[in-house]
Amino acid sequence: MLLTVLNFAGVAVFAASGALIGVRKRLDIFGVWTVAALTGLGGGVVRDVLLGESPPTAFESWESLTVVAVAALTVFIFHPQFAAFRRAVLVLDAFGVALFSASGALMAVHVGTSAVAATLIGITTALGGGVLRDILVNEVPLLIQGGNLQAIPALSGAGVTVLLSESSVGEDWALVAGTVLAFGFRVVAVWRNLNAPYAPDNVVNSLAMSLRRRWQNRDRGSRLRLRRR
Amino acid sequence: MLLTVLNFAGVAVFAASGALIGVRKRLDIFGVWTVAALTGLGGGVVRDVLLGESPPTAFESWESLTVVAVAALTVFIFHPQFAAFRRAVLVLDAFGVALFSASGALMAVHVGTSAVAATLIGITTALGGGVLRDILVNEVPLLIQGGNLQAIPALSGAGVTVLLSESSVGEDWALVAGTVLAFGFRVVAVWRNLNAPYAPDNVVNSLAMSLRRRWQNRDRGSRLRLRRR
Amino acid sequence: MLLTVLNFAGVAVFAASGALIGVRKRLDIFGVWTVAALTGLGGGVVRDVLLGESPPTAFESWESLTVVAVAALTVFIFHPQFAAFRRAVLVLDAFGVALFSASGALMAVHVGTSAVAATLIGITTALGGGVLRDILVNEVPLLIQGGNLQAIPALSGAGVTVLLSESSVGEDWALVAGTVLAFGFRVVAVWRNLNAPYAPDNVVNSLAMSLRRRWQNRDRGSRLRLRRR
Repeated sequence: MLLTVLNFAGVAVFAASGALIGVRKRLDIFGVWTVAALTGLGGGVVRDVLLGESPPTAFESWESLTVVAVAALTVFIFHPQFAAFRRAVLVLDAFGVALFSASGALMAVHVGTSAVAATLIGITTALGGGVLRDILVNEVPLLIQGGNLQAIPALSGAGVTVLLSESSVGEDWALVAGTVLAFGFRVVAVWRNLNAPYAPDNVVNSLAMSLRRRWQNRDRGSRLRLRRR
Repeated sequence: MLLTVLNFAGVAVFAASGALIGVRKRLDIFGVWTVAALTGLGGGVVRDVLLGESPPTAFESWESLTVVAVAALTVFIFHPQFAAFRRAVLVLDAFGVALFSASGALMAVHVGTSAVAATLIGITTALGGGVLRDILVNEVPLLIQGGNLQAIPALSGAGVTVLLSESSVGEDWALVAGTVLAFGFRVVAVWRNLNAPYAPDNVVNSLAMSLRRRWQNRDRGSRLRLRRR
Repeated sequence: MLLTVLNFAGVAVFAASGALIGVRKRLDIFGVWTVAALTGLGGGVVRDVLLGESPPTAFESWESLTVVAVAALTVFIFHPQFAAFRRAVLVLDAFGVALFSASGALMAVHVGTSAVAATLIGITTALGGGVLRDILVNEVPLLIQGGNLQAIPALSGAGVTVLLSESSVGEDWALVAGTVLAFGFRVVAVWRNLNAPYAPDNVVNSLAMSLRRRWQNRDRGSRLRLRRR
């Protein structure tokens, strides 16, 4: 029961984030609804396609569709007010990612996939909606643009859930632990502005240069020593 | 039999619209063919993936592939002449959307999905090819850009087909009714240049401002009354 | 055994090509990994979704994921050195396309699809990863941009594999023949800089103009003959 309510909360947050981007892109009300639906339900649909569940559970549930519609309409009307809640939206989004990574992974475990596959499917469930949203509005996905470690929380949440679900802890606590860990990770990453490293310009050149410098220094050192004699 | 012929007509129209965009994007003949195939068959492939039909029926049918190839080649050679038939192409495209929304929904009903899922799958069948086309050529999909209510005809066509197919009318008439309704809707939308509403700039501010004005007017009114005394 | 090793080689090459584009797009290490994984494994995942294999085999295999991670990390660190091996990368990429078109088609034959579907699925396996990569980084896919016939090698490799696999040659030799043919085709196309034709500007106008010219020439010819008299 609690899981169902939390799940709708996750869908609502994701749908609202999609609707907000739709409004910013100056789409009409159907465009905004489409982006909201794809963002809110896309991760779950991709999960079901990968797990061979057909039709996807999101399609069978008028409740999720209603949640998406209400979220999209709310943002459509009150979008300027959402700017004031930027921090709250970030926290809610972190919660959505955390919950979906854990619940997606658990669903894969139920279907009987390997631990590796379940972890990957959890990550896909959590991040798939956002990637589809960004592809639809023709932007480079925020996920690969980086910024505050979006992938790490989803990975840790899904991984811990899978590991614990196969232990004696039980699935419920596995879900809670995975969600809390992923949520904490993301909140800390946003709070401390943590970022993943970028590709170094030229490791080989840098190495070669530092070796040459060391060599020259040794050389100079030996020359200096020669003079001193 | 008629349905099969109409279905190929729908594939041909969609493939031609994809090929036309491919030519405009200055793609070579294989690029044009790829965009045409994705536009003509993409909606049906997505429908089959969502319904768990594998491999997708479009892949099994050399007839559809031939239709796509002929449509793509025709556009490839005679694309400047298509500009003259812009109105005819719009009408044919409206027909393709209408037919696919109804037939996609009916196929989902056959597989045994809920009414909500069948309606959504009908919409996806009708609009999926165009969205995939626009994503492939790196444009914001026409669907979410709006313009003459693309989503409403598909929604009404799929919804009516699902509702009627479960009534005593029978599936054949459900398909006809859904197609005709969706087609009519789209043609009227293009003809009267109907558009969906865009997000208001700031509902709360507008409301606050109109309240303030009313308040000030009342205030001024009372002041006037005071003066009159 | 050899096929497994070759398959990992194909995944590694594709993942490296994806990682290279990720580095060029200035993504962080997780972004680079994501693009690498989608490029290396995307074609196979799409193949499995189309064939109804769930979860996709790539998700179940920590070996492929390790290959992707190693390839991505290598490119992440040594990317400037890869520029020096552009020719080698092209050859390896041609090998990856060739192998995946043949092995994807063979896998579809095993599942029992028609010959047409198996060929299409082979092409999708070979080219799907690259298309997903380009969509993710928000570029028009290289596939439809053309340039040295990317589609033809995949088509020939998949087609020959399917045809031979149903003959007395046997599946192993069908795979070898398809791979070699596709590889040879692509290498020759890159080497001789072969390209597919683009859409003619206006066939009807050109035809009309050449007819008019011929007519005028005939006319002039007859006038000349008149003068001569």
